[in-house]
Amino acid sequence: MNINYSMAAKHLGSSAVRDILKLTQGKDIISLAGGLPSEDHFPLKAIQEAYSQVLSSNSSVLQYGLTEGYAPLRDKIAARLTSQGIPTSSSEIVLTTGSQQAIDLLCKIILDPGDTVLVEAPTYLAALQVLGSYRADIQSLESDVDGILPDDLEDKLRRYRPKLLYVVPTFSNPTGATWSQERRIKVVELCRRYGVLILEDNPYGEISFQSDKDSCPSTLAAIDRSYSGDYCVAYTGTFSKIVAPALRTGWIVGGSQLIKTLAKAKQAADLHSSTIDQRALDQLLLHFDLEQHISIISREYHSRMNTLSSEITSRKWEGSFFREPKGGMFLWLTLAEHVNSTELLKLAIPKGVAFVPGEVFYSSQPHKNTMRLNFTHTAPDVIPLAIERLESALVEFNNNKKTTSLV
Amino acid sequence: MNINYSMAAKHLGSSAVRDILKLTQGKDIISLAGGLPSEDHFPLKAIQEAYSQVLSSNSSVLQYGLTEGYAPLRDKIAARLTSQGIPTSSSEIVLTTGSQQAIDLLCKIILDPGDTVLVEAPTYLAALQVLGSYRADIQSLESDVDGILPDDLEDKLRRYRPKLLYVVPTFSNPTGATWSQERRIKVVELCRRYGVLILEDNPYGEISFQSDKDSCPSTLAAIDRSYSGDYCVAYTGTFSKIVAPALRTGWIVGGSQLIKTLAKAKQAADLHSSTIDQRALDQLLLHFDLEQHISIISREYHSRMNTLSSEITSRKWEGSFFREPKGGMFLWLTLAEHVNSTELLKLAIPKGVAFVPGEVFYSSQPHKNTMRLNFTHTAPDVIPLAIERLESALVEFNNNKKTTSLV
Repeated sequence: MNINYSMAAKHLGSSAVRDILKLTQGKDIISLAGGLPSEDHFPLKAIQEAYSQVLSSNSSVLQYGLTEGYAPLRDKIAARLTSQGIPTSSSEIVLTTGSQQAIDLLCKIILDPGDTVLVEAPTYLAALQVLGSYRADIQSLESDVDGILPDDLEDKLRRYRPKLLYVVPTFSNPTGATWSQERRIKVVELCRRYGVLILEDNPYGEISFQSDKDSCPSTLAAIDRSYSGDYCVAYTGTFSKIVAPALRTGWIVGGSQLIKTLAKAKQAADLHSSTIDQRALDQLLLHFDLEQHISIISREYHSRMNTLSSEITSRKWEGSFFREPKGGMFLWLTLAEHVNSTELLKLAIPKGVAFVPGEVFYSSQPHKNTMRLNFTHTAPDVIPLAIERLESALVEFNNNKKTTSLV
Repeated sequence: MNINYSMAAKHLGSSAVRDILKLTQGKDIISLAGGLPSEDHFPLKAIQEAYSQVLSSNSSVLQYGLTEGYAPLRDKIAARLTSQGIPTSSSEIVLTTGSQQAIDLLCKIILDPGDTVLVEAPTYLAALQVLGSYRADIQSLESDVDGILPDDLEDKLRRYRPKLLYVVPTFSNPTGATWSQERRIKVVELCRRYGVLILEDNPYGEISFQSDKDSCPSTLAAIDRSYSGDYCVAYTGTFSKIVAPALRTGWIVGGSQLIKTLAKAKQAADLHSSTIDQRALDQLLLHFDLEQHISIISREYHSRMNTLSSEITSRKWEGSFFREPKGGMFLWLTLAEHVNSTELLKLAIPKGVAFVPGEVFYSSQPHKNTMRLNFTHTAPDVIPLAIERLESALVEFNNNKKTTSLV
């Protein structure tokens, strides 16, 4: 039978990241490609105890639950967000299957085909996939070191009348960049003025390499809530990076009307996410020092980033450039203008190293001489070997190039 | 900020079932409304052991997993389906967050706004919600005691050129009805001839009250796979009813091209479902006699259905009618023509009993004198009281009616 797929299906690309992950599985390849946290630092024992606690209760824990998610966990997330400067009540939260589902559900209730969405360039690949599946008109914004440019934003707010601005302003995926406080205020003010919803995606914000937490800029959500009137920022976070991904528990926060509509969409999408995982996280938050755990993994990731950074710096690749991220999981490397990183990857994999070519993170006009390097999943003593292999691929790429030029 | 929602959001109704469940929570109300399995019969101990086993492994169990789901569990489901007459390989399965997500993802990859979907009348409420969110043109089919009518189906296949036929042919939600083998063959043949995809939703099929399993008709999927050529039936099932709902693990089976496209849609929707739950189910299937467990709960549910059935029969309500279901979780009760069951519910709740008014299960032309009664979640000794309360509400309804007629 010849299946006639929907337009949405035709606009669903597969994630290059995941395709590469599949390609490297089970082989002796050092992968700087995935966005995986360090398995060595999952709080396995505390998680074991949390599940054991949950399942030692009565069998009602195994029954259907609320679409919005397990209420005590929502309470704890609300309290935690409030302490982080985002005043939140439980009724303003829906728990989701990772923050990925939050992005998908928000797009579902906001976007009709052809609606414009503004994004950073480059931006989170799987968000581009979701936007594609809703057949959004994706327009990229210009950025500098402080974040997206207000003039360009205002111009595009006027020109395109977008429905949504999607951003990862803190320790961004893929660039690791962080917007300045001033720029954040400006962006929130502009979107409030033009009545455009912002989706602030913040999976990495708590993984900070700065010892002085006060030096971290506010979330857009915190800035938005300092004004009176309705919220303009919907905010999504996750336990995937600060606890563990397999529990698939994220959340989205927004005005209560938005949250009600999101809950309806979630009800149709899957009734609710795993309650056992949600209850285990609730137990974990009761008995485990999550803040200390976040400090520990942040220190470890900072150290791994330093190793990666100094390895690259010491190689002095011609024309290469990067900015050290102040948190998160990724370092964004720009190579010499002539290096096509997708071509480079084909040489790198046989040499035993993988990364994500930068071009997949752009909706248009990709910078092909860029790549995303993850520093959280590779053991620190292996990172130098990864960069050695990358250099070897780069040398081969340049030699091939020279040969081609000579022909 | 005035949020401008998408057309999909505007077409998302909230589930009346879940709204009623909320209304009755924490009150002394006997609910025959929900589609909940019996908590007393969840295999809690085996589930505890399964989670403990999973989490006593190394911390890689907490890492991101494959979008398609945990491979060993897919293998086991494939083997189980094959033994049930649906030859399946692992690559033809995607694990989903309950079978609800399977319905949603299939609709996402198949339906564009305005595409026609054929359904039974009445049919599963949350499927109607999903179809609504994709703005499908929903056309209802006529049925008799053997299932949907082939002539009406063929007429509508010709007239509407639908993209999908959605059915629950075994122990249906909401009616408890089961199609005959002959009718099943006819329907599969017609859909193959017209090239129309069938989504066979089978969450209840294993909960059979018939001691002779051979007397159960085949699934549409099994019939479809007995022909050569591409599959015409996508088939979805779940562990929610035969193990426990909180683990949110369902599956969808289809041709490998369809499954690849579904996996892409799932990747954008939530990357993957809870791997811990999937691994726990995999462990459970290794060490727990699921088939025996299904026999036990089926016997228990059969007994509860008998109690409900004889309670209603003994009341001899004027004009009431039902057919005893041969499996599943629901009894569909038709009352006298003049009884509006939504109005009746408003009288029933203060008397301490809840049910789902039949009209919510129709996409058009509802039979308002019907209701869905669940018999799996209420303890057998409480069922008579529930029916006594329902009768009391019915008496009040009829008295009010008489008073109104006199005025």
